[in-house]
Amino acid sequence: MAKYLSELDQLFQALSDGTRRAIVERLVHSPASVSTLAEPFDAALPTIVAHLRVLERAGIVSSEKVGRVRTYQLVPDALVPANHWIVAQRRPQERRLDRLGEHLARRPDTPPSPTEPPGATT
Amino acid sequence: MAKYLSELDQLFQALSDGTRRAIVERLVHSPASVSTLAEPFDAALPTIVAHLRVLERAGIVSSEKVGRVRTYQLVPDALVPANHWIVAQRRPQERRLDRLGEHLARRPDTPPSPTEPPGATT
Repeated sequence: MAKYLSELDQLFQALSDGTRRAIVERLVHSPASVSTLAEPFDAALPTIVAHLRVLERAGIVSSEKVGRVRTYQLVPDALVPANHWIVAQRRPQERRLDRLGEHLARRPDTPPSPTEPPGATT
Repeated sequence: MAKYLSELDQLFQALSDGTRRAIVERLVHSPASVSTLAEPFDAALPTIVAHLRVLERAGIVSSEKVGRVRTYQLVPDALVPANHWIVAQRRPQERRLDRLGEHLARRPDTPPSPTEPPGATT
């Protein structure tokens, strides 16, 4: 059954494999060729190439071929949509606390409201 | 081929489906029964139940059965490891900028270092 995969589907799917995550962790430091990327893994080169294709389809890495060597690099900010989705799933009470914190940070010197006398009890 | 799935594998795999993400988005607001969760979807109840099992195995939701009704709720902080992994994949230059920002924020009134005369050129 063919299924349309959204950007987030592809991002999270690409990140759901330990080898692919390790490739991303390696590319954080610098671009690298397929053979360099394959070195630390106990996997055949075609397996690594397949993982790289999944990462490239998801927009996480891009590649460039010079002569016979294909070099992969991270696409800047490619993981931002995944990060945004996760951060948006905080529960309402946590978001209320965030807003309270922002409010207090913006108004550090505001005296107590005059509509609430200091000694008021209810 | 049986394959060991790590915590991150399971988290990202669970989030790679739009219906499962929509269930998480709904549960952010309050716990809900299977039939309530199934309402917005054009999918058979067993399909929704299967999605909920994936989310529960990944530790993203938990459930409780009272009488004949099973209620699902989000597990607090379940997505934190996924978020941490993503945030850790910033490139070294971005992390250096972060550290510079933290340094400047900590020492707002520090004069230029005496080992670097103001007019020094190299």
